[in-house]
Amino acid sequence: MDPYGLRRVVSPRGVLPQQADVLDPALPLGEDELSISVEALNVDAASFRQIESAVGRDPERIAAEVMAVVRRRGKMHNPVTGSGGMLVGRVRDVGPRHPAAGTLRPGDRVATLVSLTLTPLRLAAVRAVRPEIERVECEGEAILFATGLWARLPCDIPEALALAALDVCGAPALVARHARPGQRVLVLGAGKSGALVCAQAGESLGEGGEVVAADRSEAALAALAAAGVCDRTVALDATDAVSSLERLSAAGAPFDLVVNCASVAGTEMASILPVKEGGTVLFFSMATRFTAAALGAEGVGKDATLLVGNGFVPGHAELALDLVRRHPALQELFAARHR
Amino acid sequence: MDPYGLRRVVSPRGVLPQQADVLDPALPLGEDELSISVEALNVDAASFRQIESAVGRDPERIAAEVMAVVRRRGKMHNPVTGSGGMLVGRVRDVGPRHPAAGTLRPGDRVATLVSLTLTPLRLAAVRAVRPEIERVECEGEAILFATGLWARLPCDIPEALALAALDVCGAPALVARHARPGQRVLVLGAGKSGALVCAQAGESLGEGGEVVAADRSEAALAALAAAGVCDRTVALDATDAVSSLERLSAAGAPFDLVVNCASVAGTEMASILPVKEGGTVLFFSMATRFTAAALGAEGVGKDATLLVGNGFVPGHAELALDLVRRHPALQELFAARHR
Repeated sequence: MDPYGLRRVVSPRGVLPQQADVLDPALPLGEDELSISVEALNVDAASFRQIESAVGRDPERIAAEVMAVVRRRGKMHNPVTGSGGMLVGRVRDVGPRHPAAGTLRPGDRVATLVSLTLTPLRLAAVRAVRPEIERVECEGEAILFATGLWARLPCDIPEALALAALDVCGAPALVARHARPGQRVLVLGAGKSGALVCAQAGESLGEGGEVVAADRSEAALAALAAAGVCDRTVALDATDAVSSLERLSAAGAPFDLVVNCASVAGTEMASILPVKEGGTVLFFSMATRFTAAALGAEGVGKDATLLVGNGFVPGHAELALDLVRRHPALQELFAARHR
Repeated sequence: MDPYGLRRVVSPRGVLPQQADVLDPALPLGEDELSISVEALNVDAASFRQIESAVGRDPERIAAEVMAVVRRRGKMHNPVTGSGGMLVGRVRDVGPRHPAAGTLRPGDRVATLVSLTLTPLRLAAVRAVRPEIERVECEGEAILFATGLWARLPCDIPEALALAALDVCGAPALVARHARPGQRVLVLGAGKSGALVCAQAGESLGEGGEVVAADRSEAALAALAAAGVCDRTVALDATDAVSSLERLSAAGAPFDLVVNCASVAGTEMASILPVKEGGTVLFFSMATRFTAAALGAEGVGKDATLLVGNGFVPGHAELALDLVRRHPALQELFAARHR
């Protein structure tokens, strides 16, 4: 048994697959591994732009560069940006001791929910490059370890929409775990994860609760309000903690729970100031700075539970897809973002 | 009322005192403020070394540089390192609406538990500079806002020891909140905060529990074991997650609670791998990278609650001082570290 895929690490020896320079995707399938016939890579946006800037916008050269990286590293782990992405394909083989042995069968369509930076990958060919959605359609084989997360692709939701929801599915799932009926919740950031978080918070809070969405973009807030997933909206610049607190106080701060889904840096204090004493702040923004959160709360003497938004919560994929199913307005909102 | 001290921010306008370039320490005392006759600044080590490297090791020149920074900024906020420190002094005046109005009286000796980077300060004179403990003895006046944390200095504990304990008092207090009787707890890092955390964990866990301390230094581990604050020690390099997990598995991993008090970067995965599914990781290391924790847990499909170690928990100062009182061995251990 090799739950973290250590035997596939070629160099440097003894590190985890994500930290490795080179993986071996060609070893025979382990009894606790799963193999996938790859149809497409959804390359991380930062990685895709870096490749474009290095080789130009020519699809053939982009394809050649992707092939070269995967041949060299045994994974689509961009050596410049350090980022990966996810992939879509059909189950090829399930090792008898893989946790999904009783659940998945060859031919099932799945998306991987672990980063391509730790996914052993071989590519036979690139069939098409679609720069507008950072997608590389291809033929190849990928390996998932026993601890590697995956989700079955649903038949009733368009693939682009399903992938968009799966990409941020940890956020609404962790909100479902921490939000309590009757609470008042602030969601900073009205993007994709903010929208799903608002919808989940509304369901978790029930009748007595209130969901307040805040963002710099009035248009994004209007879209959330029109989708019916928040009770109130506040336009603010979350990098300006003092003016944000003023606006949020007028909208009923402090809150029991603050969920940071902002896409910009420097929003830690705008998350900490409006939470109640004894309340909770959930940080999902990848721009969060650990020290700014820890020292910032101490600096203002705020006793708040500060949580790192772990991307994995059991059942998170189905929870996010079900949210999208129950809120058709979210589907329109996501579709508009992907047009 | 001005709980965050916004009226004392001179420039740039509208930011919090910590983000400000210049504060005004000379305004009349606000009714929710507290003033302190300063006896000494305990300058952050990084800040002190930077000043030494800039002006040399001459105490008079160091004193002049400290005076200059405080005169220019209205706070001892090192413009190069961005760090501050804490101060010790006697209460001068307590505004009638300050939260400590019923508790503190003029003449009480206190230490501030908020950073000097947000503490309005005027210095009349520097009396002595003690580079070996990064201390600047001085005469001056400092202001604490209503949200600014402070602790009464105890009469029965040597000041250096009390300050050392107060410096990291948030860690054991948060452990007291999250550790449950009978659990098994791993503490990474056998330094000052690790020692206090071990002692608190042992008390919180009771008879059925187990405290395992891990560090790179065999000497530090031996000192903790001799102090009787842990049940078992494991020598490991926490920047090497794979070998750390091997050693910890031999010592009984997985753990219910992992507390990261390491002083080096790159120890996130060594904290996440050995925690149980459904367990909790408390990150106190200021070298923690937010993305390494969030994406690392997702990468190995670990459902763990990841907590940012908020430096403030109500009652944290008394809790840490009481721990030191109940564990005389800790006093010897800390004294040895400060020799």
